[in-house]
Amino acid sequence: MRGIDASIRIGGGGTQAGAHQLSTEQGVKVIGVASTIDNDLGGSDRTIGFDTACNTALEAMDRLRDTAASYGRIFFVEVMGRDTGIHRHAHGIAAGAEYVMVPERRENVNELVSVLENRSKEKGSCIVVVAEGDEEGGAFKLAAEVGKRCPQFDIRVSVLGHLQRGGSPTMADRLLAARLGAAAVEGLIAGKHNCVVGIVNGAITFTPHAKAIAQKKMIEPDLIRLLAMLAV
Amino acid sequence: MRGIDASIRIGGGGTQAGAHQLSTEQGVKVIGVASTIDNDLGGSDRTIGFDTACNTALEAMDRLRDTAASYGRIFFVEVMGRDTGIHRHAHGIAAGAEYVMVPERRENVNELVSVLENRSKEKGSCIVVVAEGDEEGGAFKLAAEVGKRCPQFDIRVSVLGHLQRGGSPTMADRLLAARLGAAAVEGLIAGKHNCVVGIVNGAITFTPHAKAIAQKKMIEPDLIRLLAMLAV
Amino acid sequence: MRGIDASIRIGGGGTQAGAHQLSTEQGVKVIGVASTIDNDLGGSDRTIGFDTACNTALEAMDRLRDTAASYGRIFFVEVMGRDTGIHRHAHGIAAGAEYVMVPERRENVNELVSVLENRSKEKGSCIVVVAEGDEEGGAFKLAAEVGKRCPQFDIRVSVLGHLQRGGSPTMADRLLAARLGAAAVEGLIAGKHNCVVGIVNGAITFTPHAKAIAQKKMIEPDLIRLLAMLAV
Amino acid sequence: MRGIDASIRIGGGGTQAGAHQLSTEQGVKVIGVASTIDNDLGGSDRTIGFDTACNTALEAMDRLRDTAASYGRIFFVEVMGRDTGIHRHAHGIAAGAEYVMVPERRENVNELVSVLENRSKEKGSCIVVVAEGDEEGGAFKLAAEVGKRCPQFDIRVSVLGHLQRGGSPTMADRLLAARLGAAAVEGLIAGKHNCVVGIVNGAITFTPHAKAIAQKKMIEPDLIRLLAMLAV
Repeated sequence: MRGIDASIRIGGGGTQAGAHQLSTEQGVKVIGVASTIDNDLGGSDRTIGFDTACNTALEAMDRLRDTAASYGRIFFVEVMGRDTGIHRHAHGIAAGAEYVMVPERRENVNELVSVLENRSKEKGSCIVVVAEGDEEGGAFKLAAEVGKRCPQFDIRVSVLGHLQRGGSPTMADRLLAARLGAAAVEGLIAGKHNCVVGIVNGAITFTPHAKAIAQKKMIEPDLIRLLAMLAV
Repeated sequence: MRGIDASIRIGGGGTQAGAHQLSTEQGVKVIGVASTIDNDLGGSDRTIGFDTACNTALEAMDRLRDTAASYGRIFFVEVMGRDTGIHRHAHGIAAGAEYVMVPERRENVNELVSVLENRSKEKGSCIVVVAEGDEEGGAFKLAAEVGKRCPQFDIRVSVLGHLQRGGSPTMADRLLAARLGAAAVEGLIAGKHNCVVGIVNGAITFTPHAKAIAQKKMIEPDLIRLLAMLAV
Repeated sequence: MRGIDASIRIGGGGTQAGAHQLSTEQGVKVIGVASTIDNDLGGSDRTIGFDTACNTALEAMDRLRDTAASYGRIFFVEVMGRDTGIHRHAHGIAAGAEYVMVPERRENVNELVSVLENRSKEKGSCIVVVAEGDEEGGAFKLAAEVGKRCPQFDIRVSVLGHLQRGGSPTMADRLLAARLGAAAVEGLIAGKHNCVVGIVNGAITFTPHAKAIAQKKMIEPDLIRLLAMLAV
Repeated sequence: MRGIDASIRIGGGGTQAGAHQLSTEQGVKVIGVASTIDNDLGGSDRTIGFDTACNTALEAMDRLRDTAASYGRIFFVEVMGRDTGIHRHAHGIAAGAEYVMVPERRENVNELVSVLENRSKEKGSCIVVVAEGDEEGGAFKLAAEVGKRCPQFDIRVSVLGHLQRGGSPTMADRLLAARLGAAAVEGLIAGKHNCVVGIVNGAITFTPHAKAIAQKKMIEPDLIRLLAMLAV
């Protein structure tokens, strides 16, 4: 097509879906590089940008903790990463959050209220991590619901949103980008195409586009367990 | 009162109003230390926390610019500091913003739209700084208004809010805190009270509480002029 | 011993050697947690502190690049991590270094000079990463040697040393610490002792103290290859 | 000269001396913009880059304090700013240093040793700020002298050097740069030349090149006094 032998597409699910179409419909040889701060693309344990976005969010949450602790407040913090839950659990543990909303579990508003009532007495301040597009309606709706049940709480909401993006990349993201970039070029030379290059269990892997796009990442179970242990 | 000879009150307008009352109604000798990230208390050119909050906001805006430039977007960024306009102008200049909403000026939505139409063609991305509680209704309302008039724009809103607070203080804030803390103690010893200690034009000053609270800080006019020059 | 049932020792090689002795000589049940910014202890792919120290060093090297590029200088940067070479290669790739001294390879001063002569013409500035205790004698000695051979170079030396330590931990280090801390407690309860708990290929592992201490970490070969590709 | 009507020179003492020569010998209209991280040029209370370099140094010193406190060590930290002493006092106060070497005062090694003996007992760790080119010979020589007298101390040296340069500028530096840049252009248009533009006591000023270069900045006396008060 237009004299293009091959194309390397760097991006997340949307980009790779387009790359897949380009490959199957136009016959262009395409390799995708797994790159999204949401870490919700299959074919790589970590996608480029995830580590940087996590650390940016963590700095923000450390600052929110300063305010929460000073005033005895409860903060609902909305982070990116709707589907996978990886963001919110990683953030929750690293920031010492008292609760992380898990979309798969029902009834968790009741549990949340009960946890907040206990923790806020002991600690004075609490941080609750919510993902954007959470089925309870995001941080504002959830905070309103909790505020209605517990008028004694001094509640604030903070939406990280686009503030998680951009900035100078971390070491881990630079190394990942260097590895995947080199592997994409060498993969094309070696005849691979219509696949996503990533790192799985420490090794470079080439996953067919269709499979990488369809794959749903699961929260690592030990993160859920850890969170419960550490939030006490 | 309760064996208290004197009290040093560190905080902003609310804290100092309370300090004033304590002083006049209870007869306690009180010195206030001008400390608020909003920099909206009289009696000190800069209040403790302002420099740190400004730099935190600046880092966030630098990251938003990365995203805005990548996608050709227009970001409305809501910063703290309702009344003084100092925050928003300082942020606007330092972050290279294309426009800063000035509450005192009417008709500025028209001007804003006209600026955005010109700038977005040249630069691809724009950052508009809005203060919380702005009379046009804050960033979300303003963004909605602009979006209605200019459906071609790809608009995003980011509210810094509590994310401007907390964190490790800057050099300037630590020096200011050291200076004002020492001056408050020495002031009390020297017999001063019912006043706010601050730094005005480089010198330690003691301003009566009533005056410090009532004083309205004006935006430095050269900041408004600079912004217009640099945003071109 | 003194009513102590078990002990958890958090630290690097020295700490774990002491833990091993405590275990074998005093019969105390000990589990070690792999924690050193040098990442030179066996039993865990990454040790606690490594990711934070790497990112701190990276920020410093980004700043040195600003100066190197402004003045057309060659910087020799001495980083921690004498033995493993992991630090220096990771730093080198992430910082876009033009050369990384590899202790295992002889003759590399000649190669270094040749690389610098080529690169400095194209790029104007160069960064050379050296490990402390490097067999060529560290950054100062190496810089002096290169300066003698190439008097035309404007050379500076920067020793990161203790500046790599301390600071707020990254997300990756906080998660690693949470995982290893929980695993150490659960390991003791499950009857494990005289071992180091770490994460190898993504899974919690308990490695006998003697083995973890003796194990020599090798530079991942793809890092050496990547560095050569990217520095061109 | 070569069709150049006027020139704006951004830099410190060396740059401005060259600008002065260009102006007097070649008749070019020159305005200098006071810009050096050393803040040792006259004609402006603060020069562009000083605030950024100070905050970079402060972050480094906060990290060194983490290590010093963990191990009960004494750190000698060498910062930039040979002549003025402003750097070292500002850093010393902001970082909570236990001692700052003052070049003008004799006998201060004796005083230093006496302070360290007292402070290290109470606090366990100490930070001593030394300026590069200090007449006692810099941090390494001073540390060796103290180590000889007090073999019980666990002493480390850290040289910030070029690590203070570069990086993303702070809000204060960006505003200062915006103000001085605009003033330089407007000054030239208004007929001013052979001078340095700066901000003195909050107002834009144009100081003749010869005077700005010759002017020796003095440490603000209250900084010396504050340091003694706070280090207790």
